[in-house]
Amino acid sequence: MTDDLLYHVDGDLVPAGEATVSVDDRGFRYGDAAFETLRAYGGTISAWDRHVDRLERTCESISLEHGLSAADLRERIDETLAANDLADAYVRLSITRGVQPGKLTPQPEVDPTVVVYVKPLPRGGLEGDPVWDEPATVQTVETRRVPDDAIPAGAKTHNYLNGILARAELRNLASDGAESADEALMFDCDGHVAEGATSNLCFVRHGTLHTPTTDGPVLPGITREIVLGLAKEAGIPVREERYDLEDVLAADEAFLTNRTWELRPVATLDGDEIGGGPVTDRLSRLYDERIEQACYQ
Amino acid sequence: MTDDLLYHVDGDLVPAGEATVSVDDRGFRYGDAAFETLRAYGGTISAWDRHVDRLERTCESISLEHGLSAADLRERIDETLAANDLADAYVRLSITRGVQPGKLTPQPEVDPTVVVYVKPLPRGGLEGDPVWDEPATVQTVETRRVPDDAIPAGAKTHNYLNGILARAELRNLASDGAESADEALMFDCDGHVAEGATSNLCFVRHGTLHTPTTDGPVLPGITREIVLGLAKEAGIPVREERYDLEDVLAADEAFLTNRTWELRPVATLDGDEIGGGPVTDRLSRLYDERIEQACYQ
Repeated sequence: MTDDLLYHVDGDLVPAGEATVSVDDRGFRYGDAAFETLRAYGGTISAWDRHVDRLERTCESISLEHGLSAADLRERIDETLAANDLADAYVRLSITRGVQPGKLTPQPEVDPTVVVYVKPLPRGGLEGDPVWDEPATVQTVETRRVPDDAIPAGAKTHNYLNGILARAELRNLASDGAESADEALMFDCDGHVAEGATSNLCFVRHGTLHTPTTDGPVLPGITREIVLGLAKEAGIPVREERYDLEDVLAADEAFLTNRTWELRPVATLDGDEIGGGPVTDRLSRLYDERIEQACYQ
Repeated sequence: MTDDLLYHVDGDLVPAGEATVSVDDRGFRYGDAAFETLRAYGGTISAWDRHVDRLERTCESISLEHGLSAADLRERIDETLAANDLADAYVRLSITRGVQPGKLTPQPEVDPTVVVYVKPLPRGGLEGDPVWDEPATVQTVETRRVPDDAIPAGAKTHNYLNGILARAELRNLASDGAESADEALMFDCDGHVAEGATSNLCFVRHGTLHTPTTDGPVLPGITREIVLGLAKEAGIPVREERYDLEDVLAADEAFLTNRTWELRPVATLDGDEIGGGPVTDRLSRLYDERIEQACYQ
């Protein structure tokens, strides 16, 4: 599937199948790397400034001074999109701490490894189909979200095992050949609802949009941020708090957000039907319009 | 430093500088990989069976069915040592979930990536010098050990950012050009003493050997296990419990254990002097004798 694609590795465009990093790279040895998942729509990177800000916060959290400017990073992305002749695409940008002498303690002088991955991803949008086929089936899992004082949730890094364990639970839960749920919903260590393995959760009750606060161990998703902003502009009341599972189960509507799915309604949570609804539909339309304005004008 | 070494990557011996993995390997993208740090003494891998057991437990925890036998893995290690003409060496064995289609959810069919790293490491032992130059300076840090219900502490994986954050704190704490402490001591989320970033902690009080229980988020270190066994055989009382910092500060002796350091006395903890002592010395000698018997006969 990636056969014909070119990735950008450390300044060079290389066929995806030959794109490699050293086994001594700290990104491989320790998952010691920051990343962003981005979307290109019509050749434009959506919400670039927000991604740059979050990447900077991630790097600050893990004391990674990579020394690369936002313009340099953007150029590598644009080059990669152009080389692949892609206008609508998934993009992943990874920056690792590179190779350092054999100690765990990170050294201040960094020769970072920069990787840009791309693959085609149709736009969806106002006149297209969403990336996902169906609303999401969601299941709660035993795996707890890593708390902030162990690894800051705001840091988007190659340490992704927590989400993998959550997703592996789904696979193990799926009985005899049944499809496993699409997304795992994790609680924090205090039992509050946190987030999905790769998505934020939003739900609607009595016309108010609720989502778990990023004061807890919740990734500040860019799509989440955009949706909350759109809701406020549209006069929809927004609350960011700590919630129990019961709060979500009592919702009138629920949806997940991430850059790939955009807004994806939650069909069921632990088998209970929730579904999208008028607020979800409205926010999806506003989101599509925002993308349209920002990227296709 | 690694210039002349050969690593073993996916079945082939390759110069360390050319040893690479795909950027799509899950070991790189997500730190989705198990590893072991081993020691070769006189050409023999120390405590191989224990490492095999722990590796198996790690892979079970992360649902990684790599399908490789212990004999196969051992052969790769032995080949690597032989190719590098190394008898006394540090060895790292990594097994990743390999490349899988672009989803976070791990797929059951795995084409694992296996990497064997080696580098020369003098034996220390009864007649040699230890690997470390001085007893360790240890400092407690704010970063909490990831709790078991988020990622099992028994799983030794490429998700090592928690320890990196702990070590980065040391670097940031070190004032103007001062050397940072050698090891960071982490607490669990309940405030009990857990372990160092790459070592287990043992301490001695009134002749009893104490170490934090692996019922908490503490890696079951192989060297820790061996030392506890030696202490029991020698009639030294052993306790594995949950401890507060005060318990450690009140110790008569303290030392750290890992495969590289073996037993390393703690010179100071948060600036308070502790040091090794008769029990630490006795256990170090017993440990050296055990290695001597097991690996050099």
